[in-house]
Amino acid sequence: MQRYFVPDAQPGDKILLPKDISHHLVDVMRAAVGDQVEIVLAGHQPYLATVTNLQPATVKTIRPLVDYSELPVTVMIACGLPKTKEKPQLIVQKGTELGADRIVFFDCQRAVSHWSPSRRAKKIARLQKIANGAAEQSHRVVQPQVEYRDSWQDVLRDFPSDVAVVAWEESAKQGEVSRLKKALVGLQGGQHLLAFFGPEGGLSKQEVDQMTAQGVEAVGLGPRILRTETAPLYFLSAVSYQTELNG
Amino acid sequence: MQRYFVPDAQPGDKILLPKDISHHLVDVMRAAVGDQVEIVLAGHQPYLATVTNLQPATVKTIRPLVDYSELPVTVMIACGLPKTKEKPQLIVQKGTELGADRIVFFDCQRAVSHWSPSRRAKKIARLQKIANGAAEQSHRVVQPQVEYRDSWQDVLRDFPSDVAVVAWEESAKQGEVSRLKKALVGLQGGQHLLAFFGPEGGLSKQEVDQMTAQGVEAVGLGPRILRTETAPLYFLSAVSYQTELNG
Repeated sequence: MQRYFVPDAQPGDKILLPKDISHHLVDVMRAAVGDQVEIVLAGHQPYLATVTNLQPATVKTIRPLVDYSELPVTVMIACGLPKTKEKPQLIVQKGTELGADRIVFFDCQRAVSHWSPSRRAKKIARLQKIANGAAEQSHRVVQPQVEYRDSWQDVLRDFPSDVAVVAWEESAKQGEVSRLKKALVGLQGGQHLLAFFGPEGGLSKQEVDQMTAQGVEAVGLGPRILRTETAPLYFLSAVSYQTELNG
Repeated sequence: MQRYFVPDAQPGDKILLPKDISHHLVDVMRAAVGDQVEIVLAGHQPYLATVTNLQPATVKTIRPLVDYSELPVTVMIACGLPKTKEKPQLIVQKGTELGADRIVFFDCQRAVSHWSPSRRAKKIARLQKIANGAAEQSHRVVQPQVEYRDSWQDVLRDFPSDVAVVAWEESAKQGEVSRLKKALVGLQGGQHLLAFFGPEGGLSKQEVDQMTAQGVEAVGLGPRILRTETAPLYFLSAVSYQTELNG
């Protein structure tokens, strides 16, 4: 069933849908009065709802839905700025499907591409739209926030976590096998996990050393060399496998 | 270091490189005599080698390299034909990075796109090229084989496995949490694992029932709805996490 997010609304008999959702529901999905949809309202609570009016598009809630679509831990992904514009789009779309709560892009030593201050807002807005669409499609109750920061230090300062890790290729090369598992096994439900990933050229040794000096754990993601956009997807899949399928 | 595959060659003092590799090494990478490269020869054995000549491009092997870049189990991914041509490309590129040994596309009930017999060879050749490039880049010693089959029955017949699973969304919806883990935990090194994934519309209940009647285990990939191209990447990441990072 089609799912929409109306995070400012409360459940009730007359919920007016925002313009873009109204357009999608009426013009794209060709909904009729009486059709059912799922809407996620304030507090990330999903409801089953019925379409009661088309012009303007209005729904009424029928009952709350029980939903287990969120990871038991809050995962924040921080990626060194990739070179192309397609890679952030892929990271945001797939990262949302795989359960990320926040996706941050940050500038770093070996980033080839830089986001000029004048274009950042537009880039973030476009990526946020991709996140919102992917959240609807994967039936999540949270739309991940997409953000930009000038440095990994700003990321670490602005997004406090219980456990922070950095994906570090050299760690994999050295035959390290269990640090990622150790980091994930220790997580408690509701804790915050922050994970850093390098751009195409990787994070520099200096950056990783500075991170680990601040308590960020360097972890390997297996022996194969993963592209910058593949590493966060591997990581999120591993978090899901460890925390959701381990019963 | 740049890695190339010359699977027909044996180690020695005078290994003539095929035309496409020669072009990449000399014209794209601008290699000089004396430069070092990694080449994967017969039997998937990687070697450190030195460039000894440019016209025609020739190398000599220095020493074999110890390499642990392959998954301890042989993983075959079988995907219902996706709708767009970009999705098979993404599955092949990322599936190679994540360690797949074979990637098969098969026709099924809800596949919207069908590969006409006259165009299959060309499609497979293009995808094989993507797999080969991704294998070089991720420093694997195996170039996954890309294949097409008319049905899941043909896949099951042609690619025998010790364990076969099918990703089944309904299984996830029913709150099933541990079947994937059970399937992976039981794997022994060197065993063959075959995994089926549906197209955009999913596999039909009939198809999944027929598969399970033939011993294929239905497994969930967590509570979120994953797109057709995301599910195999989640699966491969979980296999790596379970079999490589669990030490």
